[in-house]
Amino acid sequence: MKPVIAIIMGSDSDLPVMAKAAEILDDLKLSYELSIVSAHRTPDKLYHYAKTAKEKGIKVIIAGAGGAAHLPGMTAAMTTLPVIGVPVQTKALGGVDSLYSIVQMPPGIPVATVAINGALNAGLLAAKIVAISDEELAGRIEAYAKSLEVMVEEKSLKLEEIKYKAYLEQM
Amino acid sequence: MKPVIAIIMGSDSDLPVMAKAAEILDDLKLSYELSIVSAHRTPDKLYHYAKTAKEKGIKVIIAGAGGAAHLPGMTAAMTTLPVIGVPVQTKALGGVDSLYSIVQMPPGIPVATVAINGALNAGLLAAKIVAISDEELAGRIEAYAKSLEVMVEEKSLKLEEIKYKAYLEQM
Amino acid sequence: MKPVIAIIMGSDSDLPVMAKAAEILDDLKLSYELSIVSAHRTPDKLYHYAKTAKEKGIKVIIAGAGGAAHLPGMTAAMTTLPVIGVPVQTKALGGVDSLYSIVQMPPGIPVATVAINGALNAGLLAAKIVAISDEELAGRIEAYAKSLEVMVEEKSLKLEEIKYKAYLEQM
Amino acid sequence: MKPVIAIIMGSDSDLPVMAKAAEILDDLKLSYELSIVSAHRTPDKLYHYAKTAKEKGIKVIIAGAGGAAHLPGMTAAMTTLPVIGVPVQTKALGGVDSLYSIVQMPPGIPVATVAINGALNAGLLAAKIVAISDEELAGRIEAYAKSLEVMVEEKSLKLEEIKYKAYLEQM
Amino acid sequence: MKPVIAIIMGSDSDLPVMAKAAEILDDLKLSYELSIVSAHRTPDKLYHYAKTAKEKGIKVIIAGAGGAAHLPGMTAAMTTLPVIGVPVQTKALGGVDSLYSIVQMPPGIPVATVAINGALNAGLLAAKIVAISDEELAGRIEAYAKSLEVMVEEKSLKLEEIKYKAYLEQM
Amino acid sequence: MKPVIAIIMGSDSDLPVMAKAAEILDDLKLSYELSIVSAHRTPDKLYHYAKTAKEKGIKVIIAGAGGAAHLPGMTAAMTTLPVIGVPVQTKALGGVDSLYSIVQMPPGIPVATVAINGALNAGLLAAKIVAISDEELAGRIEAYAKSLEVMVEEKSLKLEEIKYKAYLEQM
Amino acid sequence: MKPVIAIIMGSDSDLPVMAKAAEILDDLKLSYELSIVSAHRTPDKLYHYAKTAKEKGIKVIIAGAGGAAHLPGMTAAMTTLPVIGVPVQTKALGGVDSLYSIVQMPPGIPVATVAINGALNAGLLAAKIVAISDEELAGRIEAYAKSLEVMVEEKSLKLEEIKYKAYLEQM
Amino acid sequence: MKPVIAIIMGSDSDLPVMAKAAEILDDLKLSYELSIVSAHRTPDKLYHYAKTAKEKGIKVIIAGAGGAAHLPGMTAAMTTLPVIGVPVQTKALGGVDSLYSIVQMPPGIPVATVAINGALNAGLLAAKIVAISDEELAGRIEAYAKSLEVMVEEKSLKLEEIKYKAYLEQM
Repeated sequence: MKPVIAIIMGSDSDLPVMAKAAEILDDLKLSYELSIVSAHRTPDKLYHYAKTAKEKGIKVIIAGAGGAAHLPGMTAAMTTLPVIGVPVQTKALGGVDSLYSIVQMPPGIPVATVAINGALNAGLLAAKIVAISDEELAGRIEAYAKSLEVMVEEKSLKLEEIKYKAYLEQM
Repeated sequence: MKPVIAIIMGSDSDLPVMAKAAEILDDLKLSYELSIVSAHRTPDKLYHYAKTAKEKGIKVIIAGAGGAAHLPGMTAAMTTLPVIGVPVQTKALGGVDSLYSIVQMPPGIPVATVAINGALNAGLLAAKIVAISDEELAGRIEAYAKSLEVMVEEKSLKLEEIKYKAYLEQM
Repeated sequence: MKPVIAIIMGSDSDLPVMAKAAEILDDLKLSYELSIVSAHRTPDKLYHYAKTAKEKGIKVIIAGAGGAAHLPGMTAAMTTLPVIGVPVQTKALGGVDSLYSIVQMPPGIPVATVAINGALNAGLLAAKIVAISDEELAGRIEAYAKSLEVMVEEKSLKLEEIKYKAYLEQM
Repeated sequence: MKPVIAIIMGSDSDLPVMAKAAEILDDLKLSYELSIVSAHRTPDKLYHYAKTAKEKGIKVIIAGAGGAAHLPGMTAAMTTLPVIGVPVQTKALGGVDSLYSIVQMPPGIPVATVAINGALNAGLLAAKIVAISDEELAGRIEAYAKSLEVMVEEKSLKLEEIKYKAYLEQM
Repeated sequence: MKPVIAIIMGSDSDLPVMAKAAEILDDLKLSYELSIVSAHRTPDKLYHYAKTAKEKGIKVIIAGAGGAAHLPGMTAAMTTLPVIGVPVQTKALGGVDSLYSIVQMPPGIPVATVAINGALNAGLLAAKIVAISDEELAGRIEAYAKSLEVMVEEKSLKLEEIKYKAYLEQM
Repeated sequence: MKPVIAIIMGSDSDLPVMAKAAEILDDLKLSYELSIVSAHRTPDKLYHYAKTAKEKGIKVIIAGAGGAAHLPGMTAAMTTLPVIGVPVQTKALGGVDSLYSIVQMPPGIPVATVAINGALNAGLLAAKIVAISDEELAGRIEAYAKSLEVMVEEKSLKLEEIKYKAYLEQM
Repeated sequence: MKPVIAIIMGSDSDLPVMAKAAEILDDLKLSYELSIVSAHRTPDKLYHYAKTAKEKGIKVIIAGAGGAAHLPGMTAAMTTLPVIGVPVQTKALGGVDSLYSIVQMPPGIPVATVAINGALNAGLLAAKIVAISDEELAGRIEAYAKSLEVMVEEKSLKLEEIKYKAYLEQM
Repeated sequence: MKPVIAIIMGSDSDLPVMAKAAEILDDLKLSYELSIVSAHRTPDKLYHYAKTAKEKGIKVIIAGAGGAAHLPGMTAAMTTLPVIGVPVQTKALGGVDSLYSIVQMPPGIPVATVAINGALNAGLLAAKIVAISDEELAGRIEAYAKSLEVMVEEKSLKLEEIKYKAYLEQM
């Protein structure tokens, strides 16, 4: 199955975070490819990757990076595809540096930014975008949302039943 | 023409910022509707709006708000459509409050966040999303990107020609 | 005994923090109910919960949430009851995101915000509010304050007696 | 009519902000007294004021201050009445200093903090607290909330009718 | 020996930090007293303590507190003695809340603020203040500064001799 | 009269802020000298100034600077006199850069930091330090504090008398 | 004369800031070229510019940009020349976004970052770098530093002579 | 071999961070010397060190420090050599204090600032500076950049081959 979503990250140290994007796409049965593309260490690869993603059939690109995170913005500069940016948490600044580097793009080159370490949401947002013209996928997303609702409700019922002290002990 | 994009904002004081989203959609010939929906002052309207947007034919929702900005996230909680959030600048905190309130969404409910006051980019991102299955629109987006490139290049040539002192005087 | 205070939280992961509110209400002999209500995952429940709390006899609502914390503000938008917001600490940003999302409410919809992870104080504040028309409760709150004063004084006397080196060793 | 709410502020330079609290209380027909009490310049007055407020019939205290804002917290330390804190915006730090000084209270002494410069909400919150045992007041608060809803809806209808360009011109 | 310096702190949980002030005063042979005085939990004690410190012979007061740290500022409001404030590090905000609450005092009531957790420097600053009219103490402070200089120089020589790899292994 | 206090600043652009220190010292009848000493532009002057201040009879040094503000800390490194640092507000960062550069000194070299632009308090703190062994000066400081108290009280009485609307109009 | 320094900026709106770099290079008689190169709007130009700068004889590149400022880092990724980054101040966040986007580069791709709006220093740093192997230029830099020292000293003498009140009036 | 680069740090506690600068210089075969020079504890040494570095043959100085980090800026004030500043991470503030203290230098005294804890990049930047007039060194830097590119590419290929789950297990 040809990949519809591309997940790229600046370093394999971002993988524990970015894997959440792959997992949710697996759950929603959306095909994707996953690569390491560093804006700073492999600028030529980035250039080629961003410029050819669309003709390969990719519809949405998810890019995660930390610190002076240039990968999402530079990718967005070289494609008309929507690019979703995932700011990866950093040791010194908690990821505010990543967040500002990704979200504060100038007029003309948007990056759809999600929360710090919010790779699951990046995957889900990509799915919501593809689902605009894919009703079946929209249905699976709705089912996923419903499952979250049910899960919260079950936990709430349990909490109301066994009270907070017992609940805390079981956590 | 039935609107494809919905632009909503928490207050008419956000309009000077959010108008940029409408303008770029006008430029790219994408139909849209524009309303004021306050998460806090009109919660019933918000519930109804978010839940019926899709069946009205809306494909992407752009939501702008400032301060404790709950509009984008609450909208995203009640639709499978992609929601783009625009953090509006605030007097006391510069819009960091708006940004955090919009971007830091929990797993399961993504909001595609753009820069503080980045409404133009919100419109453009919506267009990029719709363009996934609309090649003509993708062409117009590419032409827009090209026009930015040309404009920068013209300014650069002028700067190189008349030098910075003359350029500064003409600004 | 019908609950007078409602404690709600966005996720059961907030329970270790929010339990402090329940504990102090237990100490002050105020009845309460405790539920999980997620603004984002269970928006319908939130809607119903906020709109019916007052008719159930609830007098004050305590709502805790983290990140883009919309629960307290959205609850406040749908009831005339006073709502107390507890910003829950977050990994990346320490809870500044939660704090801003809760405290920076627009004119017309106040949320009584306490410190990050300040659930004990949320419970105590709820009690102080109820105590306006309940002199016995006011007495119990005064006794609690007095007990804090005594506790500090005892520690101070011990410190003055055994000096700081011995005191540190016993900590 | 004996005042039910006390509004105090650290300096008369806070009055342009704090007057909003008085205005909304006027609107809601709640009696109040308004004084300048500086935690740092009039500590004796503060001690006396906080300790006698309750016996004077005050039910809620609203305290506004900026910078190292100690007035709300110190007042809360000396009364069982609920204290609402208004962080006043500051020139250098935008009011983050005021916010942290007011909201980050230790366990045992809550301050109900509202937004930076959020004095209107402080007044409204005080009203919501008093309204717990005053159904008529609760009715006036509900009417106020309704009026906000109507105002937003009218603006939205106008915007939908005359479109954003005309609307912007009339702002 | 009658104490010349007073060290107070808001809670015994601040003692591991504040003990550094006592240690350096021990080293410099300056007498001090050490107490727990909570601005919020023991406001009466604070009031009495601040107002009588001078007549007891205290010359400088060192006050440490965390979060909404009101102890140093409130003490300074009630004495003409110089007050040194130590912002204690906090879990959620790293101590920025403590720092702002202590340093941002309004005109008329200065607090001599040192670094977050900078209790050693608070002790040393107190000593420098007393040393203005005590040449012997000034000599001991100079000797202490000299000892720091020598210690740095010895470490530097060792580093230059054994090189960084060996030095790192011995750390 | 030989100066007892030294006021130094990094640039004459700091003078509008730092003049407040001189004014309060004038009011309190304390002699001072005022110079421009730039840590970065006149490092030799700084070395000489800091090392000879004490022998000239200076008892306290007040140093103001903005941005990467090294003047107070470097001065403190070369004298046993107490050094008071005034962080001057900056355009880009509001003075947080100045504050951190001054207050976060390492163990061994304290700087008594006051609020951003808090030069008046720096002067007052210097006076409080000198007043430890000068009862007359202590009396003048007490009188100054009393005058602040009276001024606040007069404003409060006026506000209570003419009410907030009239007061606002007269501001 | 072939340019030795390249000054590039992301937009002509950065020119009022970046012109300071050109001015100091003019003063120090260093040849330079000045262009607009936008990482996001002209990515192809950026790639070509960065990759050919060295062979054109450029020795140091100064790159200024604001917001999600990717120009300096991306340039540094494609050349072995030293790249100096100038974070340009922004309306919403004061330039902290620019600063973090430029300075927080990952291991392997350094950017020599100067202060927010610090273009003069960027020019001076470029000159210091070239001066390593150009003693005449080093002499001119030393003369410039000396002129700053003299200017400060003249201002200080004037201040000491006419006192602060007269000085303030003449500012 | 006479050292070309000087690496200095404020304390041996900075060595684990600063050693990265030495390591990369070892890799690139650049000679260096490594010393502890504290701006605050050894101001005389700093003075002498900065003023004599150039005549010893040093071409670039790398200075690392944390907190109120004055070492890089003060060094830059006393030499025409380029100075690279490394902000060392701090416990309370994550290194924002170090960053601001180093990067926000006033016009006339630049410090080439790298990322928090970015000592490797400081070493690399020093090498890039020296390489301006050393083509062989430029070649080694290019080879190093190439090796980073290859390393990223190898990891990417492995990830594409074994997929993310297996990759995560091997991390």
